[in-house]
Amino acid sequence: MSDRNLKVLLAARPNGAVKESDFEVVEADMPKPAGGEILLRNRFLSIDPYMRVRMNEGRSYATNLQIGDVMVGDTAAEVIESHNPDFKIGDTLVGRLGWQRYAISNGVGLRKVDPASGPLSAHLGVLGMPGVTAWYGLLQIGRPVAGETVVVAAASGAVGSVVGQIAKIHGCRVVGIAGGKMKTRHVVDELGFDAFVDHRSPNFVRELTAAVPEGVNIYFDTVGGVVLDTILTLCRPFSRIPLCGMINDYDTTQPYGVQNLYSAIANRIHLEGFIISDHAELWPQAISDLSSWIRTGILTYRETVSPGLETAPSALIGLLKGDNLGKQLVQIT
Amino acid sequence: MSDRNLKVLLAARPNGAVKESDFEVVEADMPKPAGGEILLRNRFLSIDPYMRVRMNEGRSYATNLQIGDVMVGDTAAEVIESHNPDFKIGDTLVGRLGWQRYAISNGVGLRKVDPASGPLSAHLGVLGMPGVTAWYGLLQIGRPVAGETVVVAAASGAVGSVVGQIAKIHGCRVVGIAGGKMKTRHVVDELGFDAFVDHRSPNFVRELTAAVPEGVNIYFDTVGGVVLDTILTLCRPFSRIPLCGMINDYDTTQPYGVQNLYSAIANRIHLEGFIISDHAELWPQAISDLSSWIRTGILTYRETVSPGLETAPSALIGLLKGDNLGKQLVQIT
Repeated sequence: MSDRNLKVLLAARPNGAVKESDFEVVEADMPKPAGGEILLRNRFLSIDPYMRVRMNEGRSYATNLQIGDVMVGDTAAEVIESHNPDFKIGDTLVGRLGWQRYAISNGVGLRKVDPASGPLSAHLGVLGMPGVTAWYGLLQIGRPVAGETVVVAAASGAVGSVVGQIAKIHGCRVVGIAGGKMKTRHVVDELGFDAFVDHRSPNFVRELTAAVPEGVNIYFDTVGGVVLDTILTLCRPFSRIPLCGMINDYDTTQPYGVQNLYSAIANRIHLEGFIISDHAELWPQAISDLSSWIRTGILTYRETVSPGLETAPSALIGLLKGDNLGKQLVQIT
Repeated sequence: MSDRNLKVLLAARPNGAVKESDFEVVEADMPKPAGGEILLRNRFLSIDPYMRVRMNEGRSYATNLQIGDVMVGDTAAEVIESHNPDFKIGDTLVGRLGWQRYAISNGVGLRKVDPASGPLSAHLGVLGMPGVTAWYGLLQIGRPVAGETVVVAAASGAVGSVVGQIAKIHGCRVVGIAGGKMKTRHVVDELGFDAFVDHRSPNFVRELTAAVPEGVNIYFDTVGGVVLDTILTLCRPFSRIPLCGMINDYDTTQPYGVQNLYSAIANRIHLEGFIISDHAELWPQAISDLSSWIRTGILTYRETVSPGLETAPSALIGLLKGDNLGKQLVQIT
């Protein structure tokens, strides 16, 4: 165990695609917890698309980062020193503790996790924010009905893989979209989706259309762009589109222009953006459902783990290009 | 009273902006009602943006017109011959009876209107489809709360003018958008909106931004295009956008590309398309509300009446350019 802290800072605002030089890895002194605070050793860092948005200047739903700030991110951590009666040494928890080896906290916003409930890393994925995001968006906004067709973008990612499996549990026909043929086996054979469409295929529109012969009832959108625009033309009357992310636009200076919104009128589509942190009251129910599905073997998950905090920038760059399978993590050594 | 029928047919599919030569006005024999049918004399024809969509080839929410078909449209009509026990001579009603002087019907889909409840023409406007559309979209999807900011597109039109006044009745601050400075007096002085923004102004974005210093809680959209795209950047968290029409795209071959949909995620916006004919069960309540607001003088309306069925094509062309103030009608002489 090192006795120096290690941090990854925002060094420059990306202009278009993010690159390694937009980050700076620095050593720093160990942080010292004051009265009421705890010292935490981060074990895993969650790599998520929203991080790219927070690197920009301007408005998001959260305050964006300033140059020199520690990169924002959720970690799974262990308490190694406590001056707070609510926490004791050895407690494991998840919190927005940033891209760093050590962090201090007054405990606000931390979520303790039971080591018996699953591997620590799972609380950043299927049993954490991505899993609850999938659960909320599909069940609360999408409201699937058995027999309906559900299309899931980024189907092999941390959110999409869970969305599709929950839709299968609810008796839907599930079509996954992702980039690259190597993901087919994972999405269809491992996750049990009914079909897979490669958005990098030159015949993407035709292949997607063929994959949904009865049209689309629910499209769980994490990408926006041409995928959303195409799905709009395939939507059934009274379809639902939970809007959860727009990764297509994050790593570019020119957002895609969606041309088929008229379909939202013609087909009475309900589109709704959501942010999972608004719905804290539903997390216990979501995590209880997800845990029980994992226990009974009807929900499975994958992780892509990148070794060492220094690899976090390349892990984010890879995530934005779709290199990961399942939840992208960084193990903080 | 003529004893020949007069009809306006779809003569050609418009390629971009609709023009007079896309229509053909023809004389025809009087239709003869069979057993169970009624003969109707159309008095007023409602001119509505959806008509433009139905002139296209391809998919809409309703079957599109074929070349040679009588143009689709709602009329206010009088029964002049009846072979149906549910209707008697002199009954007044509203129905989708088309761009023609006389029509026959078996009575299905007709809505009888009480002559005592208001002028016949009003049942095509404030007490008809446009009024109920405004009522439904604002109250059922928009769900206004007193003190919120409501922005209304096509504010001087048949739907927008009612939306804004209902929003005022519910204690909202209302900003109207329309094209041309001549509409300011109408929207602000006559309809009582709090502010007006001209979408034709070279400083439209700046002027709209200035008109909503606290952001937008509800945007009632009938136009799409750059207005929708700009509003998306001004939406408050948890705002609502009833999607009712996209007149910006109707009269062009190239739909506008909406670039700011990410705001729907960042601000958890609920967008929902609707078609008022889906909600027949709510019409009585809507018309009861609208009638009572008119009676008590808190809801006012305007009509632009074009004389003679032969003027219907130019009335539609004018509507699509925003020439009308209030409900655009054609008086069928």
